[in-house]
Order: sequence, then structure tokens, then C-alpha cells
Amino acid sequence: MARWNWGRVSVLPFTILVHLVGILCVALVLVWMIHFRGGLAWSTSNQILIFNIHPVLMIVCFIFLSSEAIVHFKSAPGSKFYKKTIHSALNAIALTGAIVGVAAVFKFHKELGIANLYSLHAWLGMLTIILFGLQWMSGFLVFLFPRGAKKTRGRVLPWHVFVGLLVYIAAISSAESGIVELVALLQGRNAMGKFSPEARLANCLGLSLLLLGALVVLSSVLSSPSPATKPEDAIAIPSP
Amino acid sequence: MARWNWGRVSVLPFTILVHLVGILCVALVLVWMIHFRGGLAWSTSNQILIFNIHPVLMIVCFIFLSSEAIVHFKSAPGSKFYKKTIHSALNAIALTGAIVGVAAVFKFHKELGIANLYSLHAWLGMLTIILFGLQWMSGFLVFLFPRGAKKTRGRVLPWHVFVGLLVYIAAISSAESGIVELVALLQGRNAMGKFSPEARLANCLGLSLLLLGALVVLSSVLSSPSPATKPEDAIAIPSP
Repeated sequence: MARWNWGRVSVLPFTILVHLVGILCVALVLVWMIHFRGGLAWSTSNQILIFNIHPVLMIVCFIFLSSEAIVHFKSAPGSKFYKKTIHSALNAIALTGAIVGVAAVFKFHKELGIANLYSLHAWLGMLTIILFGLQWMSGFLVFLFPRGAKKTRGRVLPWHVFVGLLVYIAAISSAESGIVELVALLQGRNAMGKFSPEARLANCLGLSLLLLGALVVLSSVLSSPSPATKPEDAIAIPSP
Repeated sequence: MARWNWGRVSVLPFTILVHLVGILCVALVLVWMIHFRGGLAWSTSNQILIFNIHPVLMIVCFIFLSSEAIVHFKSAPGSKFYKKTIHSALNAIALTGAIVGVAAVFKFHKELGIANLYSLHAWLGMLTIILFGLQWMSGFLVFLFPRGAKKTRGRVLPWHVFVGLLVYIAAISSAESGIVELVALLQGRNAMGKFSPEARLANCLGLSLLLLGALVVLSSVLSSPSPATKPEDAIAIPSP
């Protein structure tokens, strides 16, 4: 049986890349919504500015902060309790931002008389946020407060990691579908050229999000540099 | 250090679910393209029928067959050489189908004078197909013919599994973005109601693809029932 030691590849360079690509995604969505789409506002007669809050919060809070929550737990120094608290707090802020981001779309739809929750992007996004909320809640109860027995925590942990990564991937996929939907709607109304700088920026944001997702998932399977994880951590797989 | 034995959860029920959800996705895309969108044709004056080949081949070949290739290797009985050959052959057919599926869109665009490769869906999809091709080629060379040394195969295998799953997830994400783009374009032209049966069917296809992706990724981390994989296969993770 082959045994591949993930410990040979350190998570640290990938963690740095996660920060950099995450910041790139934040910068791209801000340039898109502020420079190309006119900016952000909650109360305004130009309802487009209310909508613009949605992509910004979904990427700056939901995607960027949940990415940071995953890699922080994996790579930051400090006690387990400290790391769990930061992981939980970052995910709580990410979830709150996502809920406000969804509220912005509902407000935009209501003010313009547009129907809610008809598109696949909306279905994927709502499902992701509900699963994220359940995942956060179960993680908090089992690992932080009131905290399950050691045996329970040991049993739940791999599922917490696995389901957490699936929900994270669903969030990335929802964001991709949101970019595609917004661009298709704008191009359908001739409000954005097919090869315009704005369209290319939106596509680059989509590719950057894909890269961010791949880096975060890779970081989560590589060995942690903290003493909590032993270097012999390995994933056992059948021999090739 | 907690050790979670993936061996306790058998892959077999999930494999059956993968087959069922895969068949559901195939059925949904066929009903969508044949019943709601008028059917399929390669040479026709109604170019929409050329386009319709694209979603059908991307889901029936690319997604369904690559899902089957992953779970077949994991769960089917037989020698390793036999399983590798079937895995490689299914992925080769999946890739060929995807290339013909892309050719259908290029033909559709050419006949109607529409630009190619401007959308994020196109960028994501092309990137996925190129990575899939490289992944297939490297897997064939290392594991089948001429086949690397045992040590090389052992080193490459975890990366083959990891990158393969990432490319598979990218394929699911590209398909979701394709559904969103097509529906947004049709709804922008008032060719599909927001809450019409067709729109709901398209959304159900998107959710089914998400479920299929989650089941395939889950299957790939659970223990294989074949004697090639020992029951003590485990993923080692730090204690909670």
C-alpha cells in the first residue's frame, strides 16, 4: 500500500498564495462594482447601487473570510482553542455578510418589482448559505460550546472538514454562476460589450475565484506546520 | 491524534446513488433539450438544434461518464489493470464527447455570426477541458503505458486523485455556469418564463449536478470494497 506523506509539502507557501489570490478577488469585485457599475448604496433612488452591495459582500465577506477561516485554522500558530475561536468568528462574520448580501438583492428586487429566487444562481446560493449556517452551528456546538466529548469530536471532525469543504466549493460555484448570470443579463441588454474591459475583468474575477478555491482545498489537505499536527500525517491510498 | 477510519463507511451505497443521480442528470438534460428546446441536429437550417447538442454531450459524456470513471475505479471488482483500463477508457470517451460538444457550439456560433469564447462559462469550460486532457494524458502515461516505476506511480497517485477531483469539480462548476448563462439569455429574450416548468427543470438539473458532484467526491474518499484497499485505510487528522 502506497503511503503519500502530505507532510513533505508544507501548507505555508499555499497559505500565502491564498491571501494574495483572496485579496485579488476582493480588489477585482470592488473595481467592478465601484469603477464600472457606479458604486454602492443601501438607500438610493438608483437601485442598481443597492444590487451592487450583493457581489461585494458575497466575495469580500462570504468567500474571502471563509477562505481565511479555513487556512487560518490550518496554518496559524497558537493554541487549538484560539484557532477554533478565530475560525468560528471569521465564519460567523462571513455568514453575516452573506445574509446582508442576500438582503440587498431582496431589497433591490422589491423596489423594482422583480421576482425573487427564480434562477439557479439563487437556488444554489440559498442552499449554500443554509448549509453554511448549519455547518457553522454544528461546528460551534461540537467543538467550542458546550463542546462534545473527545470521542464525539474525533468522530465529527472528518465530517466537519469534508462537509465544510463541500459547502465552500458550493459557495465558489454559486459565485461563478452569479458572475455569469449578471454578465449575461447586462450583455442581453447591451449594457456590457462581449469583449469590453468590464467583461474581461468579470471573467478574470471568475478565474481568480476558481484558483482561490483550488488553493484553499489544497491547503486543507496539506500538513499543518503547527505542533498539533504530526509530520507523519498521511492519507493512505491503495498502491498504483 | 484522532484517526478516522473511512473504512467504516462503505462506498457501495454511495456508488449506487452516483449511478441514480447521474442517470437523473442525463434524463433531465435530454427532456430539456428534446422536449422543451426542439431536439438535436448537426446539419440543419434551425441552428438552435446544433447548439442543443452542446449541453447534451457535456452532461451525458463529460459529466456522467467521468463520474462513472471515478466511482468504477473505486468500487468495481476486478484486477487493477482492468479497472485502470476501464477508468481510462471512460474518461477518454468523456473527453471526446466534450470536444465534440464544444465543436457544436463553435459551429452554432459560426453559422449565426456569434463571437466565440467571450463568456466566463466558455473560459471556465475551456480551461476545464484542457486540464482534463492533460490529466488524462499524464494518467495514461504514468499508470498504463509505458507506465512509470512503482515509486513514481506511488508519488504521482495522490496528485492524480487530487487534481482529478479538482478538474471534476471545475467541470461541475462549468456546467452550472452554462445552465445559468443559457437560462439568463433565454429569459432576457422572453423565451422562457421565470417560473415556467422549463426554468424549474433547468434549476433541478443544476441541483442534481451539485448532488452528483458531492456524491462522487465523497465516494472517492471512502474505502474501496476491493481487496486492493485494506480496511485500515484512514485519513489522519489532528485531534479536535
